[in-house]
Amino acid sequence: MNSKRGFASDNNSGIHPRILKAVERANTGHWMAYGDDPFTASAIKVFEKHFGNDLDVYFVFTGTGANVLGLRAVTASFESIMCTEIAHLNVDECGAPENITGCKLKTVPTKDGKMSTRDVEPFLAEFGNEHHTQPRVVSITQATELGTVYRPDEIKKIAIFAHENGLLLHMDGARISNAAAFLNMRFREFTRDAGVDILSFGGTKNGMMIGEAVIFFNKNLSQKFKYIRKQGMQLASKMRFISVQFEEFLSGDLWLQNARHANKMARLLAREIKNIPECKITQKVESNSVFVIIPRQYLDKILKKYFFYIWNENGPVIRLMTSFDTREGDIDNFIDTVKKAVKN
Amino acid sequence: MNSKRGFASDNNSGIHPRILKAVERANTGHWMAYGDDPFTASAIKVFEKHFGNDLDVYFVFTGTGANVLGLRAVTASFESIMCTEIAHLNVDECGAPENITGCKLKTVPTKDGKMSTRDVEPFLAEFGNEHHTQPRVVSITQATELGTVYRPDEIKKIAIFAHENGLLLHMDGARISNAAAFLNMRFREFTRDAGVDILSFGGTKNGMMIGEAVIFFNKNLSQKFKYIRKQGMQLASKMRFISVQFEEFLSGDLWLQNARHANKMARLLAREIKNIPECKITQKVESNSVFVIIPRQYLDKILKKYFFYIWNENGPVIRLMTSFDTREGDIDNFIDTVKKAVKN
Amino acid sequence: MNSKRGFASDNNSGIHPRILKAVERANTGHWMAYGDDPFTASAIKVFEKHFGNDLDVYFVFTGTGANVLGLRAVTASFESIMCTEIAHLNVDECGAPENITGCKLKTVPTKDGKMSTRDVEPFLAEFGNEHHTQPRVVSITQATELGTVYRPDEIKKIAIFAHENGLLLHMDGARISNAAAFLNMRFREFTRDAGVDILSFGGTKNGMMIGEAVIFFNKNLSQKFKYIRKQGMQLASKMRFISVQFEEFLSGDLWLQNARHANKMARLLAREIKNIPECKITQKVESNSVFVIIPRQYLDKILKKYFFYIWNENGPVIRLMTSFDTREGDIDNFIDTVKKAVKN
Amino acid sequence: MNSKRGFASDNNSGIHPRILKAVERANTGHWMAYGDDPFTASAIKVFEKHFGNDLDVYFVFTGTGANVLGLRAVTASFESIMCTEIAHLNVDECGAPENITGCKLKTVPTKDGKMSTRDVEPFLAEFGNEHHTQPRVVSITQATELGTVYRPDEIKKIAIFAHENGLLLHMDGARISNAAAFLNMRFREFTRDAGVDILSFGGTKNGMMIGEAVIFFNKNLSQKFKYIRKQGMQLASKMRFISVQFEEFLSGDLWLQNARHANKMARLLAREIKNIPECKITQKVESNSVFVIIPRQYLDKILKKYFFYIWNENGPVIRLMTSFDTREGDIDNFIDTVKKAVKN
Repeated sequence: MNSKRGFASDNNSGIHPRILKAVERANTGHWMAYGDDPFTASAIKVFEKHFGNDLDVYFVFTGTGANVLGLRAVTASFESIMCTEIAHLNVDECGAPENITGCKLKTVPTKDGKMSTRDVEPFLAEFGNEHHTQPRVVSITQATELGTVYRPDEIKKIAIFAHENGLLLHMDGARISNAAAFLNMRFREFTRDAGVDILSFGGTKNGMMIGEAVIFFNKNLSQKFKYIRKQGMQLASKMRFISVQFEEFLSGDLWLQNARHANKMARLLAREIKNIPECKITQKVESNSVFVIIPRQYLDKILKKYFFYIWNENGPVIRLMTSFDTREGDIDNFIDTVKKAVKN
Repeated sequence: MNSKRGFASDNNSGIHPRILKAVERANTGHWMAYGDDPFTASAIKVFEKHFGNDLDVYFVFTGTGANVLGLRAVTASFESIMCTEIAHLNVDECGAPENITGCKLKTVPTKDGKMSTRDVEPFLAEFGNEHHTQPRVVSITQATELGTVYRPDEIKKIAIFAHENGLLLHMDGARISNAAAFLNMRFREFTRDAGVDILSFGGTKNGMMIGEAVIFFNKNLSQKFKYIRKQGMQLASKMRFISVQFEEFLSGDLWLQNARHANKMARLLAREIKNIPECKITQKVESNSVFVIIPRQYLDKILKKYFFYIWNENGPVIRLMTSFDTREGDIDNFIDTVKKAVKN
Repeated sequence: MNSKRGFASDNNSGIHPRILKAVERANTGHWMAYGDDPFTASAIKVFEKHFGNDLDVYFVFTGTGANVLGLRAVTASFESIMCTEIAHLNVDECGAPENITGCKLKTVPTKDGKMSTRDVEPFLAEFGNEHHTQPRVVSITQATELGTVYRPDEIKKIAIFAHENGLLLHMDGARISNAAAFLNMRFREFTRDAGVDILSFGGTKNGMMIGEAVIFFNKNLSQKFKYIRKQGMQLASKMRFISVQFEEFLSGDLWLQNARHANKMARLLAREIKNIPECKITQKVESNSVFVIIPRQYLDKILKKYFFYIWNENGPVIRLMTSFDTREGDIDNFIDTVKKAVKN
Repeated sequence: MNSKRGFASDNNSGIHPRILKAVERANTGHWMAYGDDPFTASAIKVFEKHFGNDLDVYFVFTGTGANVLGLRAVTASFESIMCTEIAHLNVDECGAPENITGCKLKTVPTKDGKMSTRDVEPFLAEFGNEHHTQPRVVSITQATELGTVYRPDEIKKIAIFAHENGLLLHMDGARISNAAAFLNMRFREFTRDAGVDILSFGGTKNGMMIGEAVIFFNKNLSQKFKYIRKQGMQLASKMRFISVQFEEFLSGDLWLQNARHANKMARLLAREIKNIPECKITQKVESNSVFVIIPRQYLDKILKKYFFYIWNENGPVIRLMTSFDTREGDIDNFIDTVKKAVKN
C-alpha cells in the first residue's frame, strides 16, 4: 500500500512525529474529561505566550467547526457575515455557516483572495432596515484561499473600518502558520495587534493530527462559548489528546519549522514551474500554494498520475499545495511529469 | 503531575497502547483526506464483518455528533424523537438534538434506564394532527445510562412495534461494547438482527482516542448523510487517523477485552460496596457502572478525595464508572476511602 | 350552508362587528406599509394606556408567532424554556418553539394548568454545566390551558424567583382578556406590575379577525425584535388592518365585554352540566372553558352532533370553550343533547 | 389624517371593497378553525379552476412566508436555492430563506430581473461534492423585481433544464396577476403548463387585505406541508377570513381588473416620464413598476413630497410602483412635482 505523495492538499499530509510523541506523553492514566486537565491548561498558557493574556481559547475538531462556532458566538440569526466569494466559509463548508449560525453570507469578488474596506462599505447601507440582514462580521482568511498573505496594515485598515461601524473582524487562520512564516512575524502582530476579534487558529494542516482552536481576543464575546461548542458537537471528551498536540506545536518552534518548510517547498515548486513556458503562475506565492494555468491538453495527462484540484475551469487553473512533509523529490517527480506532458 | 485515577467517567481513561500504535502505523506519507484512503476503506470492511454487508458506516468525532447527525439524517424538523428522560440525548448534549435536528424530544420516565412499547404508544395519537410534532424515531441507549443492558428480545419488541407504526429505531451505543460483553453476543445480534435502523457506535469510551461511528442498516436512510456530516462539522480531514483506530479496535478482540475488563471491574467494585452496609446499590450492574446510595454525611468526606457525579440528589445516588484501564488497586483505594468515611 | 355553532374552540367564532367596521375605517387610500402608518401608531398608544409607557409592542399574526418570536428575542439556542407539560408552547405549536428558537423546553407536570417556583427550582442546578441547556425563561399561560387563572400574587412569586435567579418571565396571554375579566383587574396589574417581562397578548380568540401582539416591558429585550419578526415571517405589509383591530378592541371596553360574555357563558354552561349527575367538571371555571368527564358511552352519542376536543382519553375528559359570540341558545341546545345522550 | 398617495409600493394600497364585503360575508357564526371550513374548501376549488386539479394549495400570511415555507418543503438543509442577486428571496426577507430552510442561496447577476439556464449551469458542477451544498431549486420571480415579465417559453426552457438535472422550479408570484394581465394569459399557461413546480401566489399586493398561497403542482412535494406551515407559524386560526378573500379575488375577474388597472397606470406613468428629458426609464414597463434614473439634484426635491425607494444609488435609479387603486390624478400630481423639480 503506497501513499499518494502529491500536491492535492496540505491535509493529505501525516502527523509530525513530535506531535505523535506528545500524544503518547499525555497517555498517562486518568484525567478529567472535557478539558479539565493539566494538558489543556498548559496548552492555553502556550497560546497566551503567543497572543498575550486576557483571551479565551477553545479547542475544536475542524476548521469548519472553528469558523462556524466562532461566528455563531458573535452573531444573531438576522445578521450577516461578509467575506470573499472564494472564502472557505462560503464555498467549502457545505452551507454550515448559514445552517448553524442562521446568518446570511454576503460575498464580494476578489482577484487575489483578499478583501478591503471598499468591499464592505456598500453593505453598511442595510443598517436599520428590517427587510435586510444586519451587517455584523467581516471574515478574512490568512493565508488566503489563493495563497496570498495580508500585511498587518491591510488587516488594520479593515479592523478599524469594521470597528468604527460596529462590526467585528474574524480571521480564518486555517493556514495562519504559513502566513506568520512568510511575514516573519509573531502571530499577534497581524491578528490581535491588528484588530482581529475572533481567530480560527489552524493546527491540522500544519502537522497536527486533529485540532483547531477558536480564540476570542475580547472575552465579552466568548462568555457563553462553552455552551455553543458543546451544542455544536465540538467538545472532545478526551480533550487532553488534542491539547497536548497544540502544546507541542506552539511551545517551541515546531509550527514555524513546519510552515517554513511548506512555504519553501511552494517557492521551489513555483520556481520549477516558471521554467516551463506552457505553464503560467497566476498568484503570488506567499504561503504554501501555487496556482497554475496548464492548458487542458497537458493537464489531462498530468491528472493520470496526480490528483489535485482544478480551481477554475477557465484556464484551467489548478491549485498545488505543499505541506510540512513535502520533499524535494516530490517536486522533482511532479515537475518531471509536467515536463513530459507538455513535451509530447 | 499525577493523574486522578477514579470513577468519574470512562472517558477519563486514556488510549489503549495498541490504538496508539495503530495511529502510528497510519502515519505514513500522504493519503487523500476526508476518508478517501485505504485505512478508512479497511475500517469499513471490519464493520461489515461484524454487522454484515449492505450498510453505511460514517466516522465522526463525538457521541453527541453521532447521535444528533444520525437522527438528523432520518427526521424532518416537524417530527419527534422519543427517548427516556435520562437519555444522554435529552440530558447531556446541551440541546444539540433539538437545535440541530429541529425536532422535539418526547421523553418518558424510566426506572432502569430502559423504555418499552408501552412508553411509545401514547405518542401515536399525534399522527396526522398538524398542531403536534409527528412521531418518527424511538431512541434507546445500550448499555443504558443506568448501566443496564437491553436483551435482544426487548429490542426486537420495540423494533417491531416501531416499524409497524412507521417509526425508526435508533440506538445510542456509546457503550455498546460493554453491552456486547455482558450479553456475550456479537454486536449484530442485538442491533441489526433485532431491528435497529440507526446505530451510534462508540469507540472513545472503550480505549480509543477519538472516534464514534454512525451506522445505517438501511442504505436508503443514509443516501445524503455525507452532506449532513460535513454540514454538521463532523468530517475529519485526516480521517485515516480515526479510521485506523476503529480497525485496530474491531479487527481482533481489543474492543471485547477492554469491555470485559471494564465490566469485570464494575462487578468487583459493586461486590465490595455491597459489603458496606451504609451503602446501597440501586441498579443491576450489567455493564461498567455502579449506582450507589451513600448517605450525605459520608459522601461529603469521600468527595474530598474523589470526584464523581451525583446522579440524583435524592438519596443521594452517585454514579461510579469503570473503564478498560481501571485497576484492582483503584478499587481497593476507593473502597478504603469509603470505609473510612462511614466508620468515622 | 349552516355554521357549526358549538364549543370546539373560541377560535371557531367570527369577527365582532365593531372590529370589522374598524377595518373598513382604515381602508382609506394609501398608507405606508409594515407599520409606518397612523393606525399602528395609534394602536400602540392604546396599549400604552393599558400597560404604561416605556414598552415595545409588535403585532404579529398568530399566537404561536407571538410566543415563539417573543421567546426567540430573549434566548440563545443553548438556553431552555420552562413551562408546564400542557402548555400550548409544548403541545400545540408543532415544535415551533424548539425549531425556531433552537432551545430546549423543560416541562413540569401540572394539575390545574399552573406552575410554581417549586417547579422551576430543580432546573437551576444546570447553571454553568456545558452539557446542559441553561435555564433562561419561565413561561406561564394566563388564562391557563385548563381555564384557570393565576392570581397576581402567584405571578409575583414566580417573577421574583425568576429574576433572583437570572431568569425572565414570559406570559402566553392568548386568553388574557378572559383572565382580566375574571380577576376584574386592569391588564397591567397581573402582567407588568406582577413582574412579567414578555407578554403574548391575544386578540384573535376574543373577537378580532387576525392579530396578536408581543409586548416587551423592558425595552432592552426588544432592541432587535423588528429583525426577528421579519425573519420570522410575521411582518404584515398592510399592517394597518391588524393595528386598527387592536385599536378598536382596546380603546374602549370591547375586549372586556367580549371576555365577560364568554366567561359568563362558560359559567352558565358549567352550571347546567353540574345538574347532570353523569357528568363531572374537573377544573374550576374561571375563564371561558369547561372541562368535563363524560363517560364514553354517552360521549360517542354527543360527538355525532357536536365536535369538540377530547382533552384526555382517561376519563374521558372533554374541553368545551365558549366565546364572545356564544349564545344562551347554543348552551341550551348542547345541554339538551347531553341530557338525551345520558338518558338513553 | 390624510393618506399618503404615492408610488412607494403596491402594498401601500388598501383593500378592494369587494374583498372587504367578502370578509363580511364569511362572518357568520361559528366555523371550524384552521381551514376546515366551507370557505376554504370553496377557495381551493377556485384555484383548481385556474390551475387544474391534482394540486395542493395552502394559504399563508405573507409573501416571505409563502416563499420560505414552499422552499422548505422541498429542500434539505444541505441543498442550495439558485436565484438572482436582486430576488426578493435574497434581498428583502431578512435572511429568512437561509434561516428557516437552512439552505444556501446561490445568486447570479441579472440586468432585467430574469435568469436563464446559462446562469444555473455552473452550479451543477457541485453535485456529489460533500464540501458544497447541493443544487436543488431554481427560484424565479414573475413579474420580476424589475417589473419585467418572463414569457412562457423562457420559463419552459428553465423548467426543462431544471428537471433534466434533478432540480425543481419555484416561482415567486407575489405579482403574478400583473404578469398574467400583461401576458393576457391564464395563470396556468406560464406556471403549471410551463413546468413550475412550486408557486407562491400573491394576493395582498393586488387588492386583498392579507393572504398569499403556496401551490404545489406535484402533490408528492407537499405531503407534509401542513406540518411545515404550522411549525412555520403561518397557520391562521380563523382561516375562513383569508380563504374568502381568495375566493372573491379569483372566482370572477377581480384579480384581472385590479392587475390590468395597475399595469395601465404604470404605462401611463412611464409615458409621462418619458416626456421629461431629465429622466430616463431603465427597464421595460411590463407590469406595475417603473424604474427611472433621476439626477440627484432633482431627486432630493421630489423626495420632500413623495416617499419611494431608491433602487440603486448609482444613477440614482428609483422604483415607482402603481397599484389597483392608483388614480390618474395621482400620476398627474407626481408628474407635476417631477416637472417642477427639474425646472428649478
